[in-house]
Amino acid sequence: MSTLGIVKRNIVRADAAAVEKLGRFGVATIHEAMGRVGLMKPSMRPVYRGARICGTAVTVLLQPGDNWMMHVAAEQIQPGDVVVAACTSENEDGFFGDLLATSFQARGARGLVIDGGVRDVDELERMGFPVFSKAIHAKGTIKATLGSVNITVVCAGAIVNPGDVVVADVDGVVVVPAALAQTVADAAEKRESFEGEKRAKLAAGVLGLDMYKMREPLAAAGLKYID
Amino acid sequence: MSTLGIVKRNIVRADAAAVEKLGRFGVATIHEAMGRVGLMKPSMRPVYRGARICGTAVTVLLQPGDNWMMHVAAEQIQPGDVVVAACTSENEDGFFGDLLATSFQARGARGLVIDGGVRDVDELERMGFPVFSKAIHAKGTIKATLGSVNITVVCAGAIVNPGDVVVADVDGVVVVPAALAQTVADAAEKRESFEGEKRAKLAAGVLGLDMYKMREPLAAAGLKYID
Amino acid sequence: MSTLGIVKRNIVRADAAAVEKLGRFGVATIHEAMGRVGLMKPSMRPVYRGARICGTAVTVLLQPGDNWMMHVAAEQIQPGDVVVAACTSENEDGFFGDLLATSFQARGARGLVIDGGVRDVDELERMGFPVFSKAIHAKGTIKATLGSVNITVVCAGAIVNPGDVVVADVDGVVVVPAALAQTVADAAEKRESFEGEKRAKLAAGVLGLDMYKMREPLAAAGLKYID
Amino acid sequence: MSTLGIVKRNIVRADAAAVEKLGRFGVATIHEAMGRVGLMKPSMRPVYRGARICGTAVTVLLQPGDNWMMHVAAEQIQPGDVVVAACTSENEDGFFGDLLATSFQARGARGLVIDGGVRDVDELERMGFPVFSKAIHAKGTIKATLGSVNITVVCAGAIVNPGDVVVADVDGVVVVPAALAQTVADAAEKRESFEGEKRAKLAAGVLGLDMYKMREPLAAAGLKYID
Amino acid sequence: MSTLGIVKRNIVRADAAAVEKLGRFGVATIHEAMGRVGLMKPSMRPVYRGARICGTAVTVLLQPGDNWMMHVAAEQIQPGDVVVAACTSENEDGFFGDLLATSFQARGARGLVIDGGVRDVDELERMGFPVFSKAIHAKGTIKATLGSVNITVVCAGAIVNPGDVVVADVDGVVVVPAALAQTVADAAEKRESFEGEKRAKLAAGVLGLDMYKMREPLAAAGLKYID
Amino acid sequence: MSTLGIVKRNIVRADAAAVEKLGRFGVATIHEAMGRVGLMKPSMRPVYRGARICGTAVTVLLQPGDNWMMHVAAEQIQPGDVVVAACTSENEDGFFGDLLATSFQARGARGLVIDGGVRDVDELERMGFPVFSKAIHAKGTIKATLGSVNITVVCAGAIVNPGDVVVADVDGVVVVPAALAQTVADAAEKRESFEGEKRAKLAAGVLGLDMYKMREPLAAAGLKYID
Repeated sequence: MSTLGIVKRNIVRADAAAVEKLGRFGVATIHEAMGRVGLMKPSMRPVYRGARICGTAVTVLLQPGDNWMMHVAAEQIQPGDVVVAACTSENEDGFFGDLLATSFQARGARGLVIDGGVRDVDELERMGFPVFSKAIHAKGTIKATLGSVNITVVCAGAIVNPGDVVVADVDGVVVVPAALAQTVADAAEKRESFEGEKRAKLAAGVLGLDMYKMREPLAAAGLKYID
Repeated sequence: MSTLGIVKRNIVRADAAAVEKLGRFGVATIHEAMGRVGLMKPSMRPVYRGARICGTAVTVLLQPGDNWMMHVAAEQIQPGDVVVAACTSENEDGFFGDLLATSFQARGARGLVIDGGVRDVDELERMGFPVFSKAIHAKGTIKATLGSVNITVVCAGAIVNPGDVVVADVDGVVVVPAALAQTVADAAEKRESFEGEKRAKLAAGVLGLDMYKMREPLAAAGLKYID
Repeated sequence: MSTLGIVKRNIVRADAAAVEKLGRFGVATIHEAMGRVGLMKPSMRPVYRGARICGTAVTVLLQPGDNWMMHVAAEQIQPGDVVVAACTSENEDGFFGDLLATSFQARGARGLVIDGGVRDVDELERMGFPVFSKAIHAKGTIKATLGSVNITVVCAGAIVNPGDVVVADVDGVVVVPAALAQTVADAAEKRESFEGEKRAKLAAGVLGLDMYKMREPLAAAGLKYID
Repeated sequence: MSTLGIVKRNIVRADAAAVEKLGRFGVATIHEAMGRVGLMKPSMRPVYRGARICGTAVTVLLQPGDNWMMHVAAEQIQPGDVVVAACTSENEDGFFGDLLATSFQARGARGLVIDGGVRDVDELERMGFPVFSKAIHAKGTIKATLGSVNITVVCAGAIVNPGDVVVADVDGVVVVPAALAQTVADAAEKRESFEGEKRAKLAAGVLGLDMYKMREPLAAAGLKYID
Repeated sequence: MSTLGIVKRNIVRADAAAVEKLGRFGVATIHEAMGRVGLMKPSMRPVYRGARICGTAVTVLLQPGDNWMMHVAAEQIQPGDVVVAACTSENEDGFFGDLLATSFQARGARGLVIDGGVRDVDELERMGFPVFSKAIHAKGTIKATLGSVNITVVCAGAIVNPGDVVVADVDGVVVVPAALAQTVADAAEKRESFEGEKRAKLAAGVLGLDMYKMREPLAAAGLKYID
Repeated sequence: MSTLGIVKRNIVRADAAAVEKLGRFGVATIHEAMGRVGLMKPSMRPVYRGARICGTAVTVLLQPGDNWMMHVAAEQIQPGDVVVAACTSENEDGFFGDLLATSFQARGARGLVIDGGVRDVDELERMGFPVFSKAIHAKGTIKATLGSVNITVVCAGAIVNPGDVVVADVDGVVVVPAALAQTVADAAEKRESFEGEKRAKLAAGVLGLDMYKMREPLAAAGLKYID
């Protein structure tokens, strides 16, 4: 009955073209394009400056202090994937370091998003293997208890299904359901195309109050100017 | 009766020369010069390396998940101001991004200090618009509820009145009441002038124990040396 | 009866050659070589990018908001030492800044590890004086209450005895008991020598599942592959 | 495309008999019976001593500082339901108080589980309306932005689908998927039936080491007894 | 220049009748009556069940680990006062215990609100001396550094001026400016008078959707019902 | 070389009479009598109201998510002992519940102090088995990895050696080294004998300012009274 101890081999990955298109936009834009959902908690941070990821999720459910399933996940990685690791309880141990990164990179992984800790951060940067985590911790882990690979997980507050698109940059991590990838990519493009004009107006000194026609609703809400 | 829904247009800004003088000192020095008060909590951090701000406060009180008043605040900015944003409850949503930064910068703002989250951090760095916040979060906000502009606020534990001087660097954020700006600037200058001599002595191997004449009070307090 | 108000002058420092050897390895490797113990909590972070420390501990027990004992500790520093500062209760005040750093550096200290806050971070970086702390905070401290120097302390969850080896890098901070320094250095060397071969195999696409012979124990534990 | 702004009226609730049976077991037992999954984070606590809930989930997705959807949810409550409220970002405002509790209770709700704050706690206790939350906070909320009702939500780290069984007691909150309710209830019963015998043995002084036959595996793992 | 080292003896306390009237309402009601401002952070909790306070503020600014100013404050207490203690930095030491409570109670104090820790909690309950704090901690404090008494302080995020009304119950702590005490008390009374009718309707099964006429604005906002 | 995988059978427990004497005093008094050291962090709280412990420590070092060593510890318990459990990294899983409590109680244990989570809290209260922990969490643990029993541990920031006296009440948890038990008990008695007189004076309205003769040192420190 449990969802532990399972590895799903065949997963439906989001359309490759849609993934590539999503990769051209920032996390904030994609999250807006989705209707303001899909973000992980802001505790998820890049382990080195400039890290950025866009790819399809291979999910892992870990046990606290145990990274056995990371090795099981490695085999399921295909080029263009991002490993998304959740844990059955809060734990900041260093589940991942340069050896696993070498293996993931060799399999074609584009990065790791983990609701836990990682180590060998300098080496990860040298390798150019981007990681987003909630902690950096040298603490090693064991290989003793089963979790699962490619089941639905909750990572840092977001639901991630295997095959979903995961985009991560300095502003955070967003998850786009595989079936919505193209639609969201198109919406993000549209949204971004509007921003240039707005930016130009604001740079020229036009106020948002006027550009967005906020004066009337603000007055209606009761805003009072005093001297 | 409420302090919500108010925009104060005419505020008394600290003397411009005093502000410029304060800008030459670090936050730690200014805080010491004020008698060790006026600091925000250490959870307030620069969103990019090297960010530094010194200017006069335009204050904003936001509602959680709502950045409507940021647009109202934009109109109140004068060159040399710093926007200081507080929130009626704890919230780390991304109240501020590159579009608002463009508008603030066009109005002459020198930066933002916000007890909340911001986004578009890479773009903020490219623009050279310094921000100090307690979180980086892509989460978008709405425009539905009134807060206030240029009222007294509590931002990250510090009282900020409109027109106060706000100085922010890698060591934190300090608030200098407008009426004290010149006095504090002078005290900071004096304090710093003493530091050079101390630094030289310490660098030469003189101990603080001797330079500050601590041996006697330490002995009086009962300090015991054992082997 | 209390352990407060004591300064121990003669401490047994770890063997210098062993310390130098430990300095060649990362924190994660040393922690593994010790049998996965000795780490401080992951809340301890370098205050500037690239900070790294390896040296012998001079320990300090501080009182909240009071850095008096830092000056007492300065006198006990010998070249190659690292000051390790604990506090009798949780406190993030800025116990340490550029003046104390100048003094410590003049005495030959290699850095500071402190379960509290520090300030003057930009200057610390310019000086090349590495610090690991749990906070950056401009808040000044007083000099009024006795703590101790060179007693056993708990710093960020780790027991530190004076003379122990402390190694800190981007992955965290590890404490090696003085008596074990050589053994741990040798074990770290051995461990690292094995990693090159593993890394090469993983880089070539060999899976950890095969390299570590995990398939059988995983199956025995009940792992199921589904499609 | 967004999942916001939706109310699903017809949901499939877990079998009533299975729900009642689950209500006879503690959260720890049910969680074990499910294979150690399904728990919310331990930050979720009862707002008064002795609170306990078992029922079927009506889910709500709130916006920070906004409880509009709670009123929408009220209409969807059927006798035996538990309202499970998540929020699009971290927020501890008081989304719920005695008036909403009166309404929910009148509709037959058995309690509320909310990843946010609540107020009127004394009145909730007097009414006998159990609530599990991560905060108690008098802060009022507005009614301005759409969320959703009866969509899949993540509440305190657990996935909750409308109709799932939610059990809450002093040990925490567990979510049982509707389709597994009977199986888990049976497994919980079985598990509990084994505990009596174990408890009697342990109470008589038999060691777990012997009862669970741990001595051999401990020795095999390398455990050493010293004097 | 500093605000430290000052004791203000003559403060203007809120009108006694208004204070008594405010004492009849809950914190949530008063906060709403003020326009949703004035609350302290939800980390402020009663140290024993059933604690409740209403009185006029005598304010204290403490230094971390130092409760000297509590003794200075004792002399300024008049019957009906509540001591409100802030600290110059985050600290959870036990600044207050049964001896100080005995002194405060003898002076007529109605309780303590402290953004720090307290101890002797069982004795406080036996004495019937209510305390709201952010921590319970046995850690003793020293008497070495000046703070201030009866200056404006920020306590748990709220501005408190000496003489303001402070009301605390299980839902939190609210601060009513002295000049607004009567107006807020009247508004709270009015607000509460409306609640009885609402409660009766909701208890009879009327939905908030209908009582508050929300259906139309919800539809206008785009809410969609699906089956 | 590691300290993991060890069980020390023969430990020197503090003198029984001294332990009983310490049991008559509160945690705050004992901590003061020791010179203000020995306290655990304030995050350690009783899991039920009224819990109180005094006994000699049997120490356990756990791995995250693993309670195997609890069973090993059970065998080392003698009547009058308190089990003190630390963990190699931060983890709030439910390492302990009613079955282990039954076993510990049968062996004569007086309670548990654990830097982790526990479950079956209602049953623990019914059994009268006091527990102090940093979390209540239903999450079950496995039995797969060695830790140690009766080695020196750091529990919630305090060093605990096997045989030390551990006293826990509503104010926190304090550790008295075995060799100091009698001295500390005597000092606590002496301290408490002084408190009665002080309390009587303060209750009679005498100010601490006068009783402790603080007026002169306050003036010397520069305290200013203003009107």
